Amino acid sequence: MANLSKLAVNDGHGENSPYFDGWKAYDANPYHPINNPNGVIQMGLAENQLSYDLIEEWILKNPKASICTNEGISSFKDIAIFQDYHGLPEFRHAIAKFMGQVRGNRVTFDPNRIVMGGGATGASEMLMFCLADPGDAFLVPSPCYPAFDRDLRWRTRMQLIPVPCSSSNNFQLEKEALEEAYEKAQQANIKVKGLILANPSNPLGTLMDKDTLTTLVNFINEKNIHLVCDEIYSATVFRSPKFVSIAEVINDPNVVCNKDLIHILYSLSKDMGLPGFRVGILYSYNDLVVACARKMSSFGLVSSQTQHLLALMLSDEKFVARFLEENAKRLAKRHKLFTEGLEEVGISCLRSNAGLFVWMDLRGLLREPTLEGEMKIWRIIIHDVKLNVSPGSSFHCSEPGWFRVCFANMDDHTMEVALQRIRSLVDQKKESSVKSEIPVVKDNKKSQKSLHLSFTARRFNENVIMSPRVMSPHSPLPHSPTVGAST
Amino acid sequence: MANLSKLAVNDGHGENSPYFDGWKAYDANPYHPINNPNGVIQMGLAENQLSYDLIEEWILKNPKASICTNEGISSFKDIAIFQDYHGLPEFRHAIAKFMGQVRGNRVTFDPNRIVMGGGATGASEMLMFCLADPGDAFLVPSPCYPAFDRDLRWRTRMQLIPVPCSSSNNFQLEKEALEEAYEKAQQANIKVKGLILANPSNPLGTLMDKDTLTTLVNFINEKNIHLVCDEIYSATVFRSPKFVSIAEVINDPNVVCNKDLIHILYSLSKDMGLPGFRVGILYSYNDLVVACARKMSSFGLVSSQTQHLLALMLSDEKFVARFLEENAKRLAKRHKLFTEGLEEVGISCLRSNAGLFVWMDLRGLLREPTLEGEMKIWRIIIHDVKLNVSPGSSFHCSEPGWFRVCFANMDDHTMEVALQRIRSLVDQKKESSVKSEIPVVKDNKKSQKSLHLSFTARRFNENVIMSPRVMSPHSPLPHSPTVGAST
Repeated sequence: MANLSKLAVNDGHGENSPYFDGWKAYDANPYHPINNPNGVIQMGLAENQLSYDLIEEWILKNPKASICTNEGISSFKDIAIFQDYHGLPEFRHAIAKFMGQVRGNRVTFDPNRIVMGGGATGASEMLMFCLADPGDAFLVPSPCYPAFDRDLRWRTRMQLIPVPCSSSNNFQLEKEALEEAYEKAQQANIKVKGLILANPSNPLGTLMDKDTLTTLVNFINEKNIHLVCDEIYSATVFRSPKFVSIAEVINDPNVVCNKDLIHILYSLSKDMGLPGFRVGILYSYNDLVVACARKMSSFGLVSSQTQHLLALMLSDEKFVARFLEENAKRLAKRHKLFTEGLEEVGISCLRSNAGLFVWMDLRGLLREPTLEGEMKIWRIIIHDVKLNVSPGSSFHCSEPGWFRVCFANMDDHTMEVALQRIRSLVDQKKESSVKSEIPVVKDNKKSQKSLHLSFTARRFNENVIMSPRVMSPHSPLPHSPTVGAST
Repeated sequence: MANLSKLAVNDGHGENSPYFDGWKAYDANPYHPINNPNGVIQMGLAENQLSYDLIEEWILKNPKASICTNEGISSFKDIAIFQDYHGLPEFRHAIAKFMGQVRGNRVTFDPNRIVMGGGATGASEMLMFCLADPGDAFLVPSPCYPAFDRDLRWRTRMQLIPVPCSSSNNFQLEKEALEEAYEKAQQANIKVKGLILANPSNPLGTLMDKDTLTTLVNFINEKNIHLVCDEIYSATVFRSPKFVSIAEVINDPNVVCNKDLIHILYSLSKDMGLPGFRVGILYSYNDLVVACARKMSSFGLVSSQTQHLLALMLSDEKFVARFLEENAKRLAKRHKLFTEGLEEVGISCLRSNAGLFVWMDLRGLLREPTLEGEMKIWRIIIHDVKLNVSPGSSFHCSEPGWFRVCFANMDDHTMEVALQRIRSLVDQKKESSVKSEIPVVKDNKKSQKSLHLSFTARRFNENVIMSPRVMSPHSPLPHSPTVGAST
């Protein structure tokens, strides 16, 4: 037996968590309109497939931007050998400009603070290596991005402390909860190094307003800890209110803040729909962090072929303006179609105006307001309704019954089929509303006929005692469901 | 003052080592045949610029391989969203096939064992995360690749123990030295997890023969520790003897070995001359390592745009065969030109048949056979002769007076200028052969005229006591000189 590291032997990555079942079910039987119309529809992947035509159109109009065309081949050699960890200057400039444009040009970004990472995954790990020693902790409002466990914690050996948010105030982060989590960590002798949050939120699709952000800046400034803002969904805001970046907040002369504590994570995977290109960005206001992270860039530089293409594309201001406008319109339309379809059958979602997903409220379908109850209904949705959605527990949500459902990674037809399936589920549910048993589903083929869900309107009790695994501010977050893809 | 991690505050990366001076000198005053003919010539970068025309020709003939051409744009969406950490199946197949072809098809590689990393840098760190816990050690024959410090040790917190090789047997690794380093580590209570070596060697440009490799396999098998073979220069072998991969050795039925202990690092940066594309590969015979490293891939996936292009290029067997043959011919020609030019003025190099560099012997120019003596002559070469070459000490060489000089990252004209400069150095040296003082060089412009080097044939004494910093098997390797680029 070869002697491996603890990282390799322990399961810190979390691929073997039960949530992987949903991905397995999809992989084993993926939906296809003609070849496999009864397959599983993938609604667990936060991908933006609505605006590729705009990018393709630009590419065909700008053959020089590629090093593999007659027009661009003369740059091939210079680009193929380029491996400076600062990145192509024109790439850094284009990214900085794009980040400004996405934020309505209300704020500018310095190209010299743009640090490349291997996707948001690589960029965020890099930042944790710069900020936290093994054992140090970051507070994270929950529900939160499941792969934070892998990205931030796994190899750095730092830890994450959830700050639970609840549906009672639409999952907004409360100062009291933050203070409490911080105090408890202090008491347990854990060094809290910062607070990390995603704005727009994944999985909620909601924004933090300026007042909340200002409160958070005051909090971290007072404690002298870091604030990491993951803004990778900033261009997915499809209706008002406008997105407010942390960059705008700290630029406000009324906000007092040590800028050395502020760091932004960015990416083109969601905002441009280019996850395969692995463009992760760290933008830090701290010179030492910029310098150290730049050295760490070597582990996940963006392919120079891709840097070159994007440098030209993102510095085309007119194209970017059109893309951002049209993409927001398409997301708004799709969001409306999906949420209205759900409302027709009595399913509501948390009100949101960003992201590639909705936060769907199925608390009414739970037989009991527990993690087990959530997992039961989730398995039915996957195996019988055949939709791969993500249960709230995988986002470390402290209330059972919420599900993240992605709506932008498919075409209109597939969306319609998905809605149809949800309608059938609710119809079956109504038919069986007199029953109070949810049958244990074992055989998929049989169970599709015998699917009967409880319609007892058993609303979630906000004061229910949750599993300490999820709630405790002192235990690290449980395993992540995401594996192959960052979602 | 913001509270950062120890990694960020300490200088484990090594960018601030004195070796950085050479890069700074080049960056401040880069040679250009017309614009800056007196600038510094970069001979510190192991880049292969001799065969780009072949790749460009292929690209223009195969526009479908790019997703940015009229012929290839229909694949744009599918490629741009692809982020599976297994990689595009066609990419893994092409890489496996290419690795076989480079090794004369004497051995085959399983595409399912191909794991992507962000360049060799990312791939090798990934492997260390899988094999070593903080504090664990790997033995490394020295001279060795300087950036092993950064790639293997920095963020994983493992340590490297040099196994000194000497010019007395042409820097071949000796079993006794290996055993001694291993025993000393054991005595110091350091857990030795394995042995890592580069074959072909960087900086030596030499190959390990099958007997040596077999001895090493026996050694690691007996100790039950890992063997990591960095084979990133395998296609730079430009004359006989043939390259023998560790894959061939362990396939030999006469060699008894637990294959779970064997791992190969690979890359397209040197063999194809594509460092900007950041293609690092880990090929492990250990299923657990493959599984764990694949999860770690997420931190440094190869851009899907690049995967797609290379999948098509490397599966074109005829093109690859032609490229490998022609590239080897061009390297051989360049190597011959350079080494013969050096021999004409009495400078010899270690006999080698691979790599993009030679290991130049300037021991005769050293006033004293010490690290200080080496650094003195090196500063003269950089600031007066204006060639950025790399001193042996930066490769953790235990004998002063050796220098790595890269010869494939420039055109014929620049090579000729570099040779001319070396000739002048030696001529000046001859003129001043009666003098025994090396003047301290302070003003570059003045010093070019007053350059007088000692010609006393003070040969290096192999038994000289080296700095314990370099020799001690218990201290981690000193800082790396490489920074922006992996060389």
